[in-house]
Amino acid sequence: MPELRFNPITKEWVIIATERAKRPEDFKSRVRKKDIPHFVDTCPFCPGNETKTPEEVYRIPELDQSLQAASEWKIRVVPNKFAALHRKAEKMRINEGTKHIISGFGIHDIIIETPLHNMTTALLPLDHVAEIIRTYKRRFIELYSEPKIGHVIIFKNHGESAGTSLEHPHSQIIGTPVTPSQVRNRMEEAIRFFDITGECMLCKIMAEEKKEGTRVVVETEYFIAFIPYAALTPFHTWIFPKRHFAVFSDIADEEILDLALNLKTTLAKLYIGLNEPDFNYVIRSNRPTDARSECFHWYISIIPRLTTTAGFEMGSGIFINTTIPEENAEYLREVKIPF
Amino acid sequence: MPELRFNPITKEWVIIATERAKRPEDFKSRVRKKDIPHFVDTCPFCPGNETKTPEEVYRIPELDQSLQAASEWKIRVVPNKFAALHRKAEKMRINEGTKHIISGFGIHDIIIETPLHNMTTALLPLDHVAEIIRTYKRRFIELYSEPKIGHVIIFKNHGESAGTSLEHPHSQIIGTPVTPSQVRNRMEEAIRFFDITGECMLCKIMAEEKKEGTRVVVETEYFIAFIPYAALTPFHTWIFPKRHFAVFSDIADEEILDLALNLKTTLAKLYIGLNEPDFNYVIRSNRPTDARSECFHWYISIIPRLTTTAGFEMGSGIFINTTIPEENAEYLREVKIPF
Repeated sequence: MPELRFNPITKEWVIIATERAKRPEDFKSRVRKKDIPHFVDTCPFCPGNETKTPEEVYRIPELDQSLQAASEWKIRVVPNKFAALHRKAEKMRINEGTKHIISGFGIHDIIIETPLHNMTTALLPLDHVAEIIRTYKRRFIELYSEPKIGHVIIFKNHGESAGTSLEHPHSQIIGTPVTPSQVRNRMEEAIRFFDITGECMLCKIMAEEKKEGTRVVVETEYFIAFIPYAALTPFHTWIFPKRHFAVFSDIADEEILDLALNLKTTLAKLYIGLNEPDFNYVIRSNRPTDARSECFHWYISIIPRLTTTAGFEMGSGIFINTTIPEENAEYLREVKIPF
Repeated sequence: MPELRFNPITKEWVIIATERAKRPEDFKSRVRKKDIPHFVDTCPFCPGNETKTPEEVYRIPELDQSLQAASEWKIRVVPNKFAALHRKAEKMRINEGTKHIISGFGIHDIIIETPLHNMTTALLPLDHVAEIIRTYKRRFIELYSEPKIGHVIIFKNHGESAGTSLEHPHSQIIGTPVTPSQVRNRMEEAIRFFDITGECMLCKIMAEEKKEGTRVVVETEYFIAFIPYAALTPFHTWIFPKRHFAVFSDIADEEILDLALNLKTTLAKLYIGLNEPDFNYVIRSNRPTDARSECFHWYISIIPRLTTTAGFEMGSGIFINTTIPEENAEYLREVKIPF
């Protein structure tokens, strides 16, 4: 029997279509992935091609020209050459009838995660993943230091069906001049929940997940990865910090290392269990200056791209998930990581 | 210079990324479409295979066993063999902590639009498109006659990248036991707009579009097709009825014929101008019994599947559209239909 499950964060229902449900292993890609070389001459993100990107805004390790070559780096942050929004634009508004316009002010940077063209987060050394997260934190704070920025999103698109044509491992960080309505609505719902119950909704969800255990994928000291009860799509996964805090950049040093372990392990389980699926992840966080942080709790949402949204999802907002969250979590828990 | 444009229906911003904008013709598929036969022996929707579907609930023309063969039909409506929701299920609710569940009651039917396996709406005779719309109307009323149904969505997925693996032309109609939050939120925003201005927001949008004209694609007697000012994706198109009415099934006979002309012409312009793109469309309508119908206005949203949503869209709700709505509309206006 199918059932509708409620997503308390989005306040939207999800149909868990049990009768046409696929087994977790049905999502394991049977296509042999093409061999990607570790260096591509024409790739603007490969070492030696540093001049093909706009001028670097940050790198690890910081450049010491007397000691190292310009192409010796672990991580680089550069403005997006094809930025959706521009840092140097004025922020202007026009209101005309039902039309409202803001000029394209904003910040759109690329975080080049590694010099290796064919690398992926699951295979990176743990301390390198920690460096990426540390870079996220640093840039998150930097973008919010620009007072005209309304909201900052950190995300990663991995693979063509996840919306990227660039193979070289990278994340993106975009600062928009507005707070997206989607973000504001979720925040309002979280505040409403707090006002009624005096609890953080995400802390409450997490407590229930820990107690039940059936949807947990990876638990580390400070983080817990689990398949949401109302997962939108097959293997949709959340990573919550166990400590309540609303703003990603308040993450402590020891938490960064633990998040690296949790994120790497979760992505490695997807990498092995589903044979290198394309995926997106996004960090959902309050902004540093936002009040009412007792109501919200930042987290990471990982979306392996295994299905296609269609007319029903577009027209209703309700997703049809043709897998069973508990089965997917069990499958991932059992995946052994041989590295 | 990029700009952010506001979508007054969803209350969300869209980034029109002018600087990486593609020309409309860049979206014209260069892949020669594979030849699809007009009949496929194994297709459950092809004539002669009527027993491969669950028992038919409606057909045009109605079956007269003395006069016609069982396989002589223009349109058939059948329950979905792999239904997301079941008509015979009980509607039951369970509430447990943050978990809310509804049993999988609902209705999920398929509208087989034509006996021809390789047909598409753009190429169907006008009166046949009108029969499809008449079928939508009839089934829409029928589904809402079930009092446990909260909301009814009519939609079409055409092509693999639009989320269907079945080639045979078909639409779907799903009745859910709840009103989706997405639908309720839009309704509330429309009511709020009405309360403040005394106007239907969609009537106001339409008046502005007619006055400007730059985004209009096809105008017929009773309908107008245009690219929204804040189109989410390239060639995203809306078809609005010119007369204000909130519920799709209140469409009059002469309006059905005119909608058939508008829909067929709009889809034909996409079919020729973009070389048979995959697409979804969805009918967004109030439910028949809903009060406050002065605030809402039903419409059709068409989404050609030319791009992939990625982490930024998922994490923010803000879409990045790499085309300019006015250019796309101009391009489609100029497409000549040679049939």
